Amino acid sequence: MPVNLVAPEAQSLLAVPGVELGIAKAHIRKPDRKDMLVMRLAEGSRVAGVFTKNRFCAAPVTLSKQHLADAAGIRALVVNTGNANAGTGEQGMQNALATCESLAKLLGVASNQVLPFSTGVILEQLPMAPLLAGLPQCVANLAEDHWFDAAEAIMTTDIVSKGTSRQITLAGKTVTITGISKGSGMIHPNMATMLGYIATDAAISQSALEALIDHAVNKSFNCITVDGDTSTNDSLILIATGKAGNAEISDISHADYLTLRDVMTEVAVELAQAIVRDGEGATKFMTINVEAGRDVEECRKVAYAIAHSPLIKTAFFASDPNLGRILAAIGYAGVADLDVNAMSLYLGDVLVAEHGGRAVSYKEEQGAAVMQQAEITVRVVLNRGSAEATVWTCDFSYDYVRINADYRS
Amino acid sequence: MPVNLVAPEAQSLLAVPGVELGIAKAHIRKPDRKDMLVMRLAEGSRVAGVFTKNRFCAAPVTLSKQHLADAAGIRALVVNTGNANAGTGEQGMQNALATCESLAKLLGVASNQVLPFSTGVILEQLPMAPLLAGLPQCVANLAEDHWFDAAEAIMTTDIVSKGTSRQITLAGKTVTITGISKGSGMIHPNMATMLGYIATDAAISQSALEALIDHAVNKSFNCITVDGDTSTNDSLILIATGKAGNAEISDISHADYLTLRDVMTEVAVELAQAIVRDGEGATKFMTINVEAGRDVEECRKVAYAIAHSPLIKTAFFASDPNLGRILAAIGYAGVADLDVNAMSLYLGDVLVAEHGGRAVSYKEEQGAAVMQQAEITVRVVLNRGSAEATVWTCDFSYDYVRINADYRS
Repeated sequence: MPVNLVAPEAQSLLAVPGVELGIAKAHIRKPDRKDMLVMRLAEGSRVAGVFTKNRFCAAPVTLSKQHLADAAGIRALVVNTGNANAGTGEQGMQNALATCESLAKLLGVASNQVLPFSTGVILEQLPMAPLLAGLPQCVANLAEDHWFDAAEAIMTTDIVSKGTSRQITLAGKTVTITGISKGSGMIHPNMATMLGYIATDAAISQSALEALIDHAVNKSFNCITVDGDTSTNDSLILIATGKAGNAEISDISHADYLTLRDVMTEVAVELAQAIVRDGEGATKFMTINVEAGRDVEECRKVAYAIAHSPLIKTAFFASDPNLGRILAAIGYAGVADLDVNAMSLYLGDVLVAEHGGRAVSYKEEQGAAVMQQAEITVRVVLNRGSAEATVWTCDFSYDYVRINADYRS
Repeated sequence: MPVNLVAPEAQSLLAVPGVELGIAKAHIRKPDRKDMLVMRLAEGSRVAGVFTKNRFCAAPVTLSKQHLADAAGIRALVVNTGNANAGTGEQGMQNALATCESLAKLLGVASNQVLPFSTGVILEQLPMAPLLAGLPQCVANLAEDHWFDAAEAIMTTDIVSKGTSRQITLAGKTVTITGISKGSGMIHPNMATMLGYIATDAAISQSALEALIDHAVNKSFNCITVDGDTSTNDSLILIATGKAGNAEISDISHADYLTLRDVMTEVAVELAQAIVRDGEGATKFMTINVEAGRDVEECRKVAYAIAHSPLIKTAFFASDPNLGRILAAIGYAGVADLDVNAMSLYLGDVLVAEHGGRAVSYKEEQGAAVMQQAEITVRVVLNRGSAEATVWTCDFSYDYVRINADYRS
């Protein structure tokens, strides 16, 4: 079950002026399930995206990147679940394009003003008949207050839907930020099998929006891992409709930019953590902090070595303070000249290892007590610099195996 | 249960003249279990070793490396299970040294003529009283025909013991090679949590023996992975007693060297594969062949991306030909300029993907049929060069989680 995560209440997801959402049960893969989402954006909206670095990236990822590069002014997004349209070759590209064309015609815009997204099974062609039939259904119920249904419509193996909102004041104007995300397996930086959409009605220039998405992703979606697998379809999209009426933000040293950046990053962190909390089979939420490293790169190496280790993840599942496995992971993280005698390891607030071995003060029952908690921080102090990095992950349970052994059936 | 692996028959493990083995039930961690092994080597024996690259390497690894570097002539090895003497700081080094000193005194050799090895739980000090008491027990039953018991004495979470023998003729002399290994979790190249000992009575120079171990390890223990974790204690030792009476091999282009090298590599491959076949919770044995790459490095990257993916490993456990997960792993393997449209993917002999998508000829039932087998080959043809690499791994089952959640308790 998800770790300290419940679905948002419907009324907590605030409408963002300029963004309408329409949902359909299109029977892409399973009957009677919300599985399509269309987002219509007001004219003049700015959109920025970050996508998977997988070389086998899906057709909709390739096409979304092209359409963003065209800079024709994005007016709509379309998402389907059930099928990822990945590993589908030339036919997959044609299907993604046909989807954009069909939606563009319904909305009276150009096809390169539409961004397509797909998530689900790989290596199968999109079922185009139900998908195209779903588009007018989505368009028929477009409304600004459909964020709750939208969060449900993009779920795949997620147990709960993921969404959150904030409101801030920028130069006297109320600005709303609402985001939704999905994903629970095949989660890794650069990025997760995740889709994320964060919209605001703030007015912000394209270049400032692109700076903002880089900042937000590096602090959020690029800090999570469930199983180390990088998906073919990961996409995070930031939308700014400009309807709030604030003076357009273009200077990224301006206080308004920093305020907006920080709250959108907060939303991104919440959505990213929600994916880990709902990690397939997760029973524990783990924060891996690596501090006092020479550079961020080596801190991330150590953090990911810990976060990816099946041995550590199963020990956390068992609430077993088997700290030797953590030391072993630090040792093989690939920091070539690491002096293991200089570092310290903490489990929660408890010092467990230093001087290359178990801390003299450490008692097994202290570690066992920390391990009973649902949220656990592992802290590694490398003592060789001032860089740090954080990674969030979850444990590895029987249910992870069950879910992934059963996913297609 | 181990995949197509049974323990060797006692009589199949042939004595190697010049190597005596003694076993004890020393109650290092569990009662009434063979948990210590001493190997005594005839004077003049040559020994070469390869050890873990984990920065947190265990005290016995550090000391074994020192003693090999001393080149005083190794006369004995001592192995304990139940405790890895890793993450044990200065006290751990003192304990490893005390173990060598104690055995050296019993055998009338110098302490730097003894190599110590430990495997088991990390971050706990060795229980020295039972360990030192076990040494004279081991010495009391030293005999050349104790390989079968020795294979059992080094087991930890292994379900079956691992050992094999060969006999060849070199220049008219019969030469025997016998090897044993242990390990089933925390298995990864550079190397596994594994201990391996391969002995021959062939006469071979130190430099030729060192060339031989490099060759054998690269073709065997460095090609296996169970869970991607690199242990603190991995060690592979080659012993050559010189008792066979063949002319000493020193030229590594000589036919005798090549014959000996190939048969010892064959033994190493069998012992390495046995570790994967007995991988924790394994139900399938998978061979990942990556061919037609630009260099071995990129072939290994792709092979390990597949072999480490929990999503792929759980799909194999479920006998589900979820090939999209394999394509995704190829895509994120880190081969920056990989053209996914140029590569082909085979499951067994079945072409499943080409031109960036599912092969037109592929039928799901073909993949499903291959997936039912206990031994499965995944073949990736990159079509960009002539390099290749092979990795052996196993699937990921409920039992992997159960074993690793329970290991310490």
